Amino acid sequence: MADIAFAPRTSKAELEEGTGFSPKFDADGLIPCVTTDAATGELLMFAHMNAQALCQTIALGEAVYWSRSRAELWHKGATSGHVQKVVEMRVDCDQDCIWLRVDTQGKAACHVGYRSCFYRSVPVGEAAAEVRLRLEETGKLFDPKTVYGS
Amino acid sequence: MADIAFAPRTSKAELEEGTGFSPKFDADGLIPCVTTDAATGELLMFAHMNAQALCQTIALGEAVYWSRSRAELWHKGATSGHVQKVVEMRVDCDQDCIWLRVDTQGKAACHVGYRSCFYRSVPVGEAAAEVRLRLEETGKLFDPKTVYGS
Repeated sequence: MADIAFAPRTSKAELEEGTGFSPKFDADGLIPCVTTDAATGELLMFAHMNAQALCQTIALGEAVYWSRSRAELWHKGATSGHVQKVVEMRVDCDQDCIWLRVDTQGKAACHVGYRSCFYRSVPVGEAAAEVRLRLEETGKLFDPKTVYGS
Repeated sequence: MADIAFAPRTSKAELEEGTGFSPKFDADGLIPCVTTDAATGELLMFAHMNAQALCQTIALGEAVYWSRSRAELWHKGATSGHVQKVVEMRVDCDQDCIWLRVDTQGKAACHVGYRSCFYRSVPVGEAAAEVRLRLEETGKLFDPKTVYGS
């Protein structure tokens, strides 16, 4: 798989207004990636990519991340079958974050079993000294034990 | 402004399935924050919060970030007037990312002048050796020079 020739990061004007793709990888060689459901706009997950994961995602049209916990390339869905088809990829103004709009074909994105990793809300605007999370999803789409083992 | 008593990060089960709010701050004391438009689901921006920014956002009901470039608290809209009212805050499974769904009242989120920071797409599934970005937004909502000065 041929790597993509990223453009050099030159001026702020070129980064923000140009057409060169110059993703910024941090000290660990990673760029953050925000993944939303292309149909509903729901935030599904937040992950990271290294250059190889980014190139593979572009070439394959399916989300490939870098797993920081396992320190390996992570072709999403390789284990669970819940592949994320990339409908659109975007990059932000200073090119230090990737946005993937994906089609999950109704499958879950979260290893806990929910459609989205963001299944709990944090109460806002309340003067509570101790905030308690609230479950917002109606139910799990799969049982993690049957997919990943115990 | 009273700080929030975050719950200690104990077991994986408690982090993922519990109601305790135990945000994980990285070595720099920051947690990433994904901000989407509550009405359209569009990804507006990606930023970071420290504990103080997170507490102020919860108490105020408006987005407060930590600016890494300026190394200071950043009450979004303080300069531009483009305040982000928090409609909902969520946290992900392992509590190392915040999602804000905000009402921008039609205002821009990006300092470049666009509604979203993610105004350019990256072609996917093409065998191009050199990827060129494509502008997806129709126009700027403001001229940065008139808001921030030159």
